[in-house]
Amino acid sequence: MFELLPSLAKKIHLCDLPLCSVLLEDEKNYPWLILVPRRPALTNLLNVAEEDRAQLWDEVWKAQQVLSDLFHPTQLNVASIGNKTPQLHIHVIARFSNDPAWPHTVWDHPARAAYDHEQKDLIVIQLREAFSKFKKN
Amino acid sequence: MFELLPSLAKKIHLCDLPLCSVLLEDEKNYPWLILVPRRPALTNLLNVAEEDRAQLWDEVWKAQQVLSDLFHPTQLNVASIGNKTPQLHIHVIARFSNDPAWPHTVWDHPARAAYDHEQKDLIVIQLREAFSKFKKN
Repeated sequence: MFELLPSLAKKIHLCDLPLCSVLLEDEKNYPWLILVPRRPALTNLLNVAEEDRAQLWDEVWKAQQVLSDLFHPTQLNVASIGNKTPQLHIHVIARFSNDPAWPHTVWDHPARAAYDHEQKDLIVIQLREAFSKFKKN
Repeated sequence: MFELLPSLAKKIHLCDLPLCSVLLEDEKNYPWLILVPRRPALTNLLNVAEEDRAQLWDEVWKAQQVLSDLFHPTQLNVASIGNKTPQLHIHVIARFSNDPAWPHTVWDHPARAAYDHEQKDLIVIQLREAFSKFKKN
């Protein structure tokens, strides 16, 4: 049975695509999505069943497109790491040349700041709307 | 015309798969592959042409399989970052629960150590042999 690990379950749930649940990291410095395939017992990309791979790739692409269209980032960082949270999840992060971690990676960077309530409501609405366009296609 | 940026060209060239050149980072703490699609003007995954995506995914899978079979890592880290080197390249890294950066990410971690000559010759031979099996299929 598929169930999110606690460290993923506490993130902001945006929507479910056909394969992945799309979560938002509560981190205002970088619009940061996390895609979690709803399949039990996946710990890394290599475990993904062959019949799910094209769909996963497609959803990673959609997540990148959403961030690119909404935020026009300098770069997109896409990663499956899972050293601390051993449930497959793919980070898709909009990075900016003026963000506090640039040009370093964000995962172990100390600059962290949660959204305030208004910001969070706004970005959640924007992201859900952007993903809903894909869901209808 | 496709050409590696200098920071990628100086890495150890292992082999060419149908789409990607496979490079080895000279870093003995973590067996660390870098896949570079031989296409001009790619800066991130979102730029990859639709007709190349399945092949890229397939080669990322092969790279993971090679590292998994040879080194039996605790985890595989797969990432496209490109903040410092704006030419699309995908890191595929074997991580171990006793490696010096674990459980943190390796990109900005200070623990760095080049292979000595014998080690480098050995891992290059092992990796080329492992990839050559895929090339024949």
